[in-house]
Amino acid sequence: MERSSGSGPAVVAFGGGHGLSASLSALRLMSDRLTAVVTVADDGGSSGRLREEMDVLPPGDLRMALSALCDDSEWGRLWRDVMQHRFHSEGSMNQHAVGNLLIVALWELLGDPVSGLDWIGRLLGARGRVLPMASVPVAIEADIRSPGDDAVHVVRGQSAVAAAPGEVCHVRLTPADPPVPADVLAALDAADWVVLGPGSWFTSVLPHLLVPSIVDALRRSSARRCLTLNLFPDSGPGAGMTCHQHLDALAEHAPDLRFDVVVADPSAVEDLDRMHAQVEALGGQLLLRQVRVGDGTARHDALRLAAAFRDAFEGTLGDVGPR
Amino acid sequence: MERSSGSGPAVVAFGGGHGLSASLSALRLMSDRLTAVVTVADDGGSSGRLREEMDVLPPGDLRMALSALCDDSEWGRLWRDVMQHRFHSEGSMNQHAVGNLLIVALWELLGDPVSGLDWIGRLLGARGRVLPMASVPVAIEADIRSPGDDAVHVVRGQSAVAAAPGEVCHVRLTPADPPVPADVLAALDAADWVVLGPGSWFTSVLPHLLVPSIVDALRRSSARRCLTLNLFPDSGPGAGMTCHQHLDALAEHAPDLRFDVVVADPSAVEDLDRMHAQVEALGGQLLLRQVRVGDGTARHDALRLAAAFRDAFEGTLGDVGPR
Repeated sequence: MERSSGSGPAVVAFGGGHGLSASLSALRLMSDRLTAVVTVADDGGSSGRLREEMDVLPPGDLRMALSALCDDSEWGRLWRDVMQHRFHSEGSMNQHAVGNLLIVALWELLGDPVSGLDWIGRLLGARGRVLPMASVPVAIEADIRSPGDDAVHVVRGQSAVAAAPGEVCHVRLTPADPPVPADVLAALDAADWVVLGPGSWFTSVLPHLLVPSIVDALRRSSARRCLTLNLFPDSGPGAGMTCHQHLDALAEHAPDLRFDVVVADPSAVEDLDRMHAQVEALGGQLLLRQVRVGDGTARHDALRLAAAFRDAFEGTLGDVGPR
Repeated sequence: MERSSGSGPAVVAFGGGHGLSASLSALRLMSDRLTAVVTVADDGGSSGRLREEMDVLPPGDLRMALSALCDDSEWGRLWRDVMQHRFHSEGSMNQHAVGNLLIVALWELLGDPVSGLDWIGRLLGARGRVLPMASVPVAIEADIRSPGDDAVHVVRGQSAVAAAPGEVCHVRLTPADPPVPADVLAALDAADWVVLGPGSWFTSVLPHLLVPSIVDALRRSSARRCLTLNLFPDSGPGAGMTCHQHLDALAEHAPDLRFDVVVADPSAVEDLDRMHAQVEALGGQLLLRQVRVGDGTARHDALRLAAAFRDAFEGTLGDVGPR
């Protein structure tokens, strides 16, 4: 499953959950040299139960990324639907996603997270590879400012962080320096572009930038970097924050990490001058493009986001119309 | 997955569990026009739990049959191993076979047992099709003569029957006339040979002969019929009985059903004259062949059983050596 050749730029996409699915659904339209690097901090739902019961990486975000890359054929779509299928019962199988069980089975059989995911990729005819951010499960811990008393509380665990009301000030990982699969570092070395976001900012986007060996590899790589901001109103941890606060949090969690391009939907930018200044501070250029779906919900449209990535990768950064 | 062409005779193999795996492991060496028709009465283990929790056919025997037919390639063997993998934990996933979960997921997605099994067959590159004996789960009920008081008790449920001490006198199905998939009947219509056994006599072999529409199709079909007797010492329901008692039970449960060939290992025949008479009463010929593995256990050897099937199908029925 090593992809030394293919069409399009070599892209590494960081993220997790629905945000990563959105960027992969766009990126697959422009390249088949994709590597998704996925958070492994989930401790809720089917993934959390399997992580606890089987002592494995939480598989859910990996499953979603693989599903987003499935081959667009009867075969690929069928096995994607199987992977994404959830049982509904009154018993212990309730809400387990079938792909989570399949991934865990391959891990147990093969003894290696990466080759297990590659076999699922082959099953789906996936356009690209999906790798875990770390070889061991990690835990997220957050300092959250309560909306009532303005005090800062420490909240442990991704699902607790996601559920806690208030403003996230800072997140940390445990372990603080988890081992990273060699294939992740090799993909970063070979990448033309690294894409970060969109996604739950504190639990799916920033965690990658807290892993020391990933940050080292990013600094070492000649890859250019593209940041995709969320749409608003946002949900999940950090909901109620603005894109400006997200950019401040990024700068605070990954000081000195520069980005070449920042993709933002005009509707998500509250203060354009402030945005330009923040992007300039990151060393990059702002790419304002309509990238949301047309139904009014805060979801990225795969075709529009693909067009924005193309503009970013080709350096076509000028305005395309009135805001 | 309709197999209108292929090499070798069109064979329908009836059975369940390890016995059916043994006959399929042999038959796959001589034909890729195989249809396995599998009991759906299991109510124990992973299958029983899923049948209860998800209200589906018990998938375990179907999974084993599909696994026995997997393509002999890295791909086929890997997915067979995944199908056969069982989780081990202190929690609710313990002992669930992954293939059972995958089959149930496909059934839920597609709403049809047959097409779900065909997709698993495609995944495994299976040499043939695997179909359920009935479209609905059935229950087995047995009259069992207790070893102590010689009284006959009614025992309900396949795993209870399997665990009950004593001699099985008679088995029944509930419902007594279950619906049978049309593809089972079509396969019987088109078959050159129908193969029954080996396997747990009362729970995997005889049940097919208790389904009225299967018996009708058998009588209608021009297919020849081959019965493979168990090796001894036997385990499971009816353990402790002899091959002669098994043949008596067959005649009692399926009166007037004739067989063209009966395959027996010389070591399993207690009384050769009685055996010849029993086989003659079935309208067939006895094919005495060494078909067991060489390690002394009561398991069929795939190559030796394949050679015996070839002799049966080609009409090479003479002795091949001293008993």
